[in-house]
Amino acid sequence: MRHPLVVLLSDFGMRDWYVAAMRGVILSRCPRAQLLDITHEVPPQDIIAGAFTLAAAAPWFPHGTVFVAVVDPGVGSDRALLAARADGRFFVGPDNGLLALTLRNAKPLTIVQLTNRRYWLKDVSRTFQGRDIIAPVAAYLASGGSLARLGRSLRRMTPLSLPAPERRGRTVSGHIVHIDAFGNLITNLPASYLGPAERPTRPMLHPHLSSHRVGVHPHLSSRVGVRYQRQAVRMVSSYADGRPQELVAMVNALGLVELAIREGSAAWTFNAKRGDQVELTT
Amino acid sequence: MRHPLVVLLSDFGMRDWYVAAMRGVILSRCPRAQLLDITHEVPPQDIIAGAFTLAAAAPWFPHGTVFVAVVDPGVGSDRALLAARADGRFFVGPDNGLLALTLRNAKPLTIVQLTNRRYWLKDVSRTFQGRDIIAPVAAYLASGGSLARLGRSLRRMTPLSLPAPERRGRTVSGHIVHIDAFGNLITNLPASYLGPAERPTRPMLHPHLSSHRVGVHPHLSSRVGVRYQRQAVRMVSSYADGRPQELVAMVNALGLVELAIREGSAAWTFNAKRGDQVELTT
Amino acid sequence: MRHPLVVLLSDFGMRDWYVAAMRGVILSRCPRAQLLDITHEVPPQDIIAGAFTLAAAAPWFPHGTVFVAVVDPGVGSDRALLAARADGRFFVGPDNGLLALTLRNAKPLTIVQLTNRRYWLKDVSRTFQGRDIIAPVAAYLASGGSLARLGRSLRRMTPLSLPAPERRGRTVSGHIVHIDAFGNLITNLPASYLGPAERPTRPMLHPHLSSHRVGVHPHLSSRVGVRYQRQAVRMVSSYADGRPQELVAMVNALGLVELAIREGSAAWTFNAKRGDQVELTT
Repeated sequence: MRHPLVVLLSDFGMRDWYVAAMRGVILSRCPRAQLLDITHEVPPQDIIAGAFTLAAAAPWFPHGTVFVAVVDPGVGSDRALLAARADGRFFVGPDNGLLALTLRNAKPLTIVQLTNRRYWLKDVSRTFQGRDIIAPVAAYLASGGSLARLGRSLRRMTPLSLPAPERRGRTVSGHIVHIDAFGNLITNLPASYLGPAERPTRPMLHPHLSSHRVGVHPHLSSRVGVRYQRQAVRMVSSYADGRPQELVAMVNALGLVELAIREGSAAWTFNAKRGDQVELTT
Repeated sequence: MRHPLVVLLSDFGMRDWYVAAMRGVILSRCPRAQLLDITHEVPPQDIIAGAFTLAAAAPWFPHGTVFVAVVDPGVGSDRALLAARADGRFFVGPDNGLLALTLRNAKPLTIVQLTNRRYWLKDVSRTFQGRDIIAPVAAYLASGGSLARLGRSLRRMTPLSLPAPERRGRTVSGHIVHIDAFGNLITNLPASYLGPAERPTRPMLHPHLSSHRVGVHPHLSSRVGVRYQRQAVRMVSSYADGRPQELVAMVNALGLVELAIREGSAAWTFNAKRGDQVELTT
Repeated sequence: MRHPLVVLLSDFGMRDWYVAAMRGVILSRCPRAQLLDITHEVPPQDIIAGAFTLAAAAPWFPHGTVFVAVVDPGVGSDRALLAARADGRFFVGPDNGLLALTLRNAKPLTIVQLTNRRYWLKDVSRTFQGRDIIAPVAAYLASGGSLARLGRSLRRMTPLSLPAPERRGRTVSGHIVHIDAFGNLITNLPASYLGPAERPTRPMLHPHLSSHRVGVHPHLSSRVGVRYQRQAVRMVSSYADGRPQELVAMVNALGLVELAIREGSAAWTFNAKRGDQVELTT
């Protein structure tokens, strides 16, 4: 017999009782749930790091999984809380971009704002809505509950707010917004700067299109140039096109320019830091 | 079908094989158990921190949960090991105060000292009784075993040994014994100094009375004064009575004076440390 | 109903999405599995530490458990990946010694090299074979799959490569290769230097013979001397023979000389470090 799977991600750390309280609420309301974690060590309040970690991990879990994501600097403010369904998976978390990267190309995507207090704990604090609202809503979904009952339907969620690249003439100046576990350098430069891209269809739903595996293939203008640390970087279609030790650039499955070394760590080799500048000449 | 839930707390950390050995013993003896953790990062041998973390997390778990708590500087000495039942939850751990805070007001509370070796591993080391005694006893309880068979009945357990406040005239000098995840400052000053308190009934069993949510309401003498860092602190009945940014004092659900900032962190704002002095004038 | 148990050990840490991806792949292919961890905090690429941690933890888990171990500095090279069965337990990991210590005396031991791509993910990266090969193979075994189908049978696996002791005349100079959670000091000095040893039979399969509990009993020559930090160390048959605070040496269940203090920490008392020299005079 299969148990409903609830998978947690947060910036709570594991030293204290936060994560335990969420686990307890979920199991109190859905005793059959199996609980797993992506991580609770997202850097505190770092929505971008949380969004990339969720987007990297989520596609590997089975249909029916309920994802609970809490990196929520706006807790207690009037930011909305969301639940969403895409391809049989469910996502619950704040409407601050944390879920948006994972669900970027999901179609169909159903989104509701959590407004129906019937599915929340009776008392709701302003400081720990992960426990008081998000956990019981996740338990309700894991129990087979209906997304539509949770609140009012939304047409879109807040996108992940990446810093905007700056264009000066033919040069676009962006920077590194995330460094993944393989040392790949993900920038805020969208593929749209490079030409008419073929967007991958629903990348979230196909593990083998994750950003860490293969790039997508925009119709590259031969004039496109990428520079990092004063070095020209060759634009390729996928990792496999890189030579050993060569730093290459490609469009990843999230639609962003990514710098990588095939079978190596670009982060380590170049002592890369989040915020480092990457330039695109078009 | 619901699986018996066994929830662990310890100071073992996650780097080594300690926690794994306990998990393995429990599952060897109760294969249907679902194992979860509160945390294994209690500061080494810090019974007070372990007791507060357990007391904060335990109420959120469902009835039937078996809690296993091991912070045990006295392992190998003649301190007793206990199992207890309160409101359908079970607790197994050393008799050193670790369980006492959680079970402080539980009624009815059944306590046995673990003396029946039949439910232990065959060989018992003096260095790792968490694995050799506590884990198999927890597995036995998770399997539906009877508390009474585990050993001889006890009327009380060792209370959590908080340092004693000192009274000089009308002033009682206590200090901060725990800082929780919200940055609330919990003192060793019991409500009894403040007047005839209404004790909350069985706070463990009602999540919505946890110390982090609402205070209890002693009949405060208007003469009561609280001072911290040379600053007068207003005594209130609950968090909601605090003004933004205001440090307030209240009696928490554990019956202790607690300093807090509504929707803020008193620990961060005041750079508070465990051991900081808090004065009460009555 | 009992769920198949899959137990993970790696050096991935918990900050990133590595472990989550493996968990997701296993549950996608074996939805009934219960996942647990030994640890993911093995020091990066430290095969020896991983091997000792696995050997200490594995015996405590029930028959039928599938162990997944990934400490794999050779990922992407031509080192083989293995699956093995011993006494109803399964092990999956690289053929680099990581599994060898645990399975050292297991009889019968069935080993296959993972060559049948049918049980892998469709796309296999060169950088993350833990997710792409090891995880789906573990899921297949947890689902009741047949070891023999996974690839070609091997007669032996690569042993754990401990640094070799050096012999000069009657003195053998070895060193500490692992310090366990109790502060016991495990050396690279095999019992064979001490005389004709009685090897314990299948120590993996009997928890009560783990290295941390009792030693085995070689026929000690009375001439054998052990020295550590210029101090003579008494050779004993088991921990129980040590006097309080006395550093003693014994042959542990892994067949290696181990220094320990009964009910104390040799590591702490002697400020011991991995690599410290230990001398044996025979």
